[in-house]
Amino acid sequence: MNEKISLSEGSGGKEMQELIKKFREIFPIKKWKNEMDDAASLQFNGKLLFTTDSYVVTPVFFAGGNIGKIAFCGTVNDLAVMGAKPLGISLSIVLEEGFPKKDLFKIIDTIAGLSKKTGIPIITGDTKVMEKGSIDKIIINTSGIGKAEKILDEKISNGDRIIVSGGIGEHAATLLAERFNMKSKLKTDSKPLWNEINAVKKYIKQAKDITRGGLAAVLNELAEKNKKQFFIEEEKIPIKKEVRSLAEILGIDFYPFACEGRFVCICNKRNSKKVLKKLKKFNPLAREIGKVKRGNGVIVQTRFGKRILSWPSGKIVPRIC
Amino acid sequence: MNEKISLSEGSGGKEMQELIKKFREIFPIKKWKNEMDDAASLQFNGKLLFTTDSYVVTPVFFAGGNIGKIAFCGTVNDLAVMGAKPLGISLSIVLEEGFPKKDLFKIIDTIAGLSKKTGIPIITGDTKVMEKGSIDKIIINTSGIGKAEKILDEKISNGDRIIVSGGIGEHAATLLAERFNMKSKLKTDSKPLWNEINAVKKYIKQAKDITRGGLAAVLNELAEKNKKQFFIEEEKIPIKKEVRSLAEILGIDFYPFACEGRFVCICNKRNSKKVLKKLKKFNPLAREIGKVKRGNGVIVQTRFGKRILSWPSGKIVPRIC
Repeated sequence: MNEKISLSEGSGGKEMQELIKKFREIFPIKKWKNEMDDAASLQFNGKLLFTTDSYVVTPVFFAGGNIGKIAFCGTVNDLAVMGAKPLGISLSIVLEEGFPKKDLFKIIDTIAGLSKKTGIPIITGDTKVMEKGSIDKIIINTSGIGKAEKILDEKISNGDRIIVSGGIGEHAATLLAERFNMKSKLKTDSKPLWNEINAVKKYIKQAKDITRGGLAAVLNELAEKNKKQFFIEEEKIPIKKEVRSLAEILGIDFYPFACEGRFVCICNKRNSKKVLKKLKKFNPLAREIGKVKRGNGVIVQTRFGKRILSWPSGKIVPRIC
Repeated sequence: MNEKISLSEGSGGKEMQELIKKFREIFPIKKWKNEMDDAASLQFNGKLLFTTDSYVVTPVFFAGGNIGKIAFCGTVNDLAVMGAKPLGISLSIVLEEGFPKKDLFKIIDTIAGLSKKTGIPIITGDTKVMEKGSIDKIIINTSGIGKAEKILDEKISNGDRIIVSGGIGEHAATLLAERFNMKSKLKTDSKPLWNEINAVKKYIKQAKDITRGGLAAVLNELAEKNKKQFFIEEEKIPIKKEVRSLAEILGIDFYPFACEGRFVCICNKRNSKKVLKKLKKFNPLAREIGKVKRGNGVIVQTRFGKRILSWPSGKIVPRIC
């Protein structure tokens, strides 16, 4: 299949209908009803969560995944960290004219595989094609609906523990290595987090997935929102040797490195061991990295003393999620 | 304000937080609760409808509107034609580095104005910035949640009437005129359709908004789906003189011309007058254009005889919605 995407496949006519038909064969939807292609419907009773994210990434394919994997996981994870079970995901694709169909269907297959594995259906979608040169290959938007028994947003207290669910920065490091044509064993960490969150949600107070801005952004956001100080012990942060080395080689800080399959959560001291035990079944690198204190900001205890970890700023590592 | 969008405003750091803060001031959300920026929540009981669409358009600003107006209306209308009251819309923006902030906030203001006017809140969002040259200015995705008492999907019968809610093709004609630098009085027809649909939904069996692919696509889609023939009288089709002239000058057919604020609906013969009367209050050009027959395809009665109106195919008029 060496065919390439043409403008007509985004114009609302016959060719687009044919493309959409192919998509629909790949994404069987069950509980939801697809209504005349325009919207999907579902009987719903409870607390509804709704989120959206657009994904732009270079390269589109990388070790361990592709843009489709990130797009699926990112939106599933935004729901999961709220304590919401993801019920359905929309998939909107904007393509550059000439995009290889083989690549498109590889991406679609990745999404369909994740959808099947997690039981979270793709329920509605949209495809647009832009003239050559007006977009860089492919942009994907996913939005998602979830249902929460209880939103994960309990008040946190001094002495609460800060836990990270696995090795950080692997996604960013993978992309950086590929862009600089460096050989590495790195693979993206992107994965759907609902099972992990579901396993610990009874025992944690809040959770947040680590994405753009990395650990630096998540910790600052949580500290600010809760009007607390987050005290982090650097040596406890789980980070693979390859990720650390890559950051050192490039002379950049690993704290803003994005992940797409890791989260930070907060629980009281009593529950910390239980949470860690459960999380380690999913990822042996899950660690308690610090605790909540009176005050504000994020303080990191390094081998050389304390330092403030600020919000990342500037370009950071763009277009990796 | 001559500032331009920078990559750092999409990187998950401090600059992005500042931009998002501005957005949140513009979009107050009421019934929904915004949960830690990641998702919005709402207690929901009933039939839930969910839809998504990405919008790419050149030029970004045009007579009567801009890409923001289309993005808001398009998703609201996808819900409305199902008979669903739109409850909340997500807004995901992908920007090219260097995009003028003045233009961004003009677009945001348009959306905020429509949101206020219709009472449909923007409840969650996302912003990404791509390097200069990797995207053509701006792409917007909106997804939406709606609630339907009853989905507009009743079986249609021979003799049912086909109604169009206003003059067709004004959106496409406006964009074409601007691209060819032709002076005209044309303005986009884009507008939210919930009020119109709500006024007639008791009396109609099905509805579909006219977007990409124009009347040609909508009529074929409905005829195919219902396994009926749609018999259309060309002279009854409401179309402004300017739209018709523009199609004639360019030597193209007006049937595939996109709208963003018109729909086709089907009702039984008895209800037709009532539906028309109600729709004419919103748009005096609302017309009954034909009827449902046994058979298949779309047949148009012209002054010169009958012809088959096929699915539009090929490029049509790309990137206008």
